[in-house]
Amino acid sequence: MLQNIRVVLVNTSHPGNIGGAARAMKNMGLSRLVLVQPRDFPSAEAVARAAGAVDILDNACIVNSLEEALGGCGLVLGTSARNRHIPWPLLDPRECAAACIEQVEQAGEVALVFGREDSGLSNDELQRCHFHVHIPSDPEFSSLNLAAAVQVLTYEVRMAWLAAQGQPTKMAKLETHAEQGSLPVTADELERFYAHMESTLVQIGFHDPENPRHLMPRLRRLYGRNNISKLEMNILRGILTETQKAARGEVYKRRDN
Amino acid sequence: MLQNIRVVLVNTSHPGNIGGAARAMKNMGLSRLVLVQPRDFPSAEAVARAAGAVDILDNACIVNSLEEALGGCGLVLGTSARNRHIPWPLLDPRECAAACIEQVEQAGEVALVFGREDSGLSNDELQRCHFHVHIPSDPEFSSLNLAAAVQVLTYEVRMAWLAAQGQPTKMAKLETHAEQGSLPVTADELERFYAHMESTLVQIGFHDPENPRHLMPRLRRLYGRNNISKLEMNILRGILTETQKAARGEVYKRRDN
Repeated sequence: MLQNIRVVLVNTSHPGNIGGAARAMKNMGLSRLVLVQPRDFPSAEAVARAAGAVDILDNACIVNSLEEALGGCGLVLGTSARNRHIPWPLLDPRECAAACIEQVEQAGEVALVFGREDSGLSNDELQRCHFHVHIPSDPEFSSLNLAAAVQVLTYEVRMAWLAAQGQPTKMAKLETHAEQGSLPVTADELERFYAHMESTLVQIGFHDPENPRHLMPRLRRLYGRNNISKLEMNILRGILTETQKAARGEVYKRRDN
Repeated sequence: MLQNIRVVLVNTSHPGNIGGAARAMKNMGLSRLVLVQPRDFPSAEAVARAAGAVDILDNACIVNSLEEALGGCGLVLGTSARNRHIPWPLLDPRECAAACIEQVEQAGEVALVFGREDSGLSNDELQRCHFHVHIPSDPEFSSLNLAAAVQVLTYEVRMAWLAAQGQPTKMAKLETHAEQGSLPVTADELERFYAHMESTLVQIGFHDPENPRHLMPRLRRLYGRNNISKLEMNILRGILTETQKAARGEVYKRRDN
């Protein structure tokens, strides 16, 4: 599905930016790069900045006009700085990504078009786009590096794509627990822990049930929001057990052995 | 509020990445950069890649340890690749940004921590973080450029900040209409347009009210979703008027004048 989304760079000056854009694309699972009259390409600097994304550079289409670059596209999205005077339907990057995914879900082709480093897209080029996309940068310092702009839009496309696939945008906490063979504790395990803790705190003289000063509720609030795993619980229970032994003077006895 | 969020780069190798990170930060309205033992800084390459964000480089704090970098922080978020074996609370970039804004709204200090280009943050460093953040890249090619990773997280912080301020993430369509001194058309203006269009289509022989073939509903659907401005409506109405004249043969008369 993502292969229906092409990134089009118009008249790029610095080959390093082409490499950086290729790396950003590949990080986000995109592969089709189209270069409209790049000033300096192929280039060793592009390869260096692409890191492992050289396949994207190797497979890049180089064309002579934006029109050629947009062949077959049902949706064309052009990046634009804030101060354009053409009134045009404008999307933020998240809306842009939603529009991309909607289009490719219907087997349509999409182009994300990025202009020159110094001057962006011309008015003529912007008028070939169905929508303009603006990255909401600080108005006092609004111009992003070209590869950084590609990174932001392709990141949003990936987030929207993962959501559309029902795929998580992160490993769930459960999985990380599971990696250590340990699921989250159950409520009753937590209760046994609190009981163990309370008796331990009494034993070491820190807690007086006759004058509780909200101690246990505070500890419950502290541990309760932590989503403790069984493994972690074993550690905490181990600490309590050892604390009880110490309170009974057993540590010293063992040391003597 | 955003000044309470610092970006911490640990043991950065390439000064270009420090410059790129500074530019990304400034684009997104952040200003506080902390460098833990950078390998090559200050550097002309950092200045070049920072573009106009040299003030951020000039004001960067250079420190000897991550501990120093995190002084005063109530929330520490560390970027992490997918395959870490420490189970730790993990956020995606959007959740990370929400946590940042929540913290700074309570006047807390936040650190976004980024590791080395080749090896990221060490397990020891990751354990100093309250949360880990993973940018959901393609598992086949998951390692982002350092400045690109700073760009993604600071972009999400800005999006969350704009939302928290009730500020738009883009110019509204209304504003772009307003730039041309033209507000969106009202429903009755739209109705008069459809009536004008229908009579015109009858005149040119394209539309037969006895056999309407859903023509008008289709045109309503087409124009209705376009949020047409008064200026655009004037243009469309002008076209209809001229079409009617043409249908009456008036164009030829005028040409003869």
